Amino acid sequence: MAQTGEVSADQRLYLDDLQVGQRFKSATHVIDAAQIKAYAREFDPQPFHLDDGAAQSTLFAGLAASGWHTAAITMRLMVESGLPLAGGIIGSGGEISWPKPTRPGDVLSVISEIVEVTPSRSRPDRGTVKVRSETHNQRGEIVQTLLARLIVPRRQA
Amino acid sequence: MAQTGEVSADQRLYLDDLQVGQRFKSATHVIDAAQIKAYAREFDPQPFHLDDGAAQSTLFAGLAASGWHTAAITMRLMVESGLPLAGGIIGSGGEISWPKPTRPGDVLSVISEIVEVTPSRSRPDRGTVKVRSETHNQRGEIVQTLLARLIVPRRQA
Repeated sequence: MAQTGEVSADQRLYLDDLQVGQRFKSATHVIDAAQIKAYAREFDPQPFHLDDGAAQSTLFAGLAASGWHTAAITMRLMVESGLPLAGGIIGSGGEISWPKPTRPGDVLSVISEIVEVTPSRSRPDRGTVKVRSETHNQRGEIVQTLLARLIVPRRQA
Repeated sequence: MAQTGEVSADQRLYLDDLQVGQRFKSATHVIDAAQIKAYAREFDPQPFHLDDGAAQSTLFAGLAASGWHTAAITMRLMVESGLPLAGGIIGSGGEISWPKPTRPGDVLSVISEIVEVTPSRSRPDRGTVKVRSETHNQRGEIVQTLLARLIVPRRQA
């Protein structure tokens, strides 16, 4: 069963607590047209993210969130409720894909699964964890997949 | 030589205009602590992105931008000046890494190179392009690499 929701600081997980197959489920975030356009004005000013009318005649056939906006909301959900790691969520990179657009009114949530746990050979205080995070909308469709490499501290001996 | 700066609509590039090895250079963006904290409050509320003092005792040893903020600024630079594609910049995903943190005062710019051009077999009006984009700071250090898959329209026959 997936762990859900916010946890207190002493429940946060170290590398030693993580196992392949562990799953975590975030809270939800409702995205609306105003958020989509505000993000786009600041970071991705293209017609299909800014204007409902102009978006109709594009590949998206309607207003869609920037993929980077979906990534940003995913990160917020993971930080606040989706992946309670000691030391926070610190990524060195990963693979991302957006199989479907995020639309106004979508209710987003993130399911994360631990897929690899690797203690560092050179640094006994930490390791690397690979986490696959799927961002779902309210219809169960996946709008983003992220396979992230995270740096996670070990418990003090 | 890399192409630089904004172009008019009739100079925008279709799949047919792109070749492996073509390079493009964006304008610059100066990031400051206020931008880093504002982004973090909205999308990545962790101490190392929010508070100079708290950031000192973390892995980052000082305030650092969220990787997703670096990605967002990179996107804005590419949209406005860094990659003049017909139809805009529409990505289906890619690989991202953050080899170094983005810091307050950094002057960011993006160099993009076409690494693969693939006409669609099923859709004669478009194709896929792989673009490697490096985001540099003012010291020439790479703070982000992105290998993105983009959907690019073909010229009408």
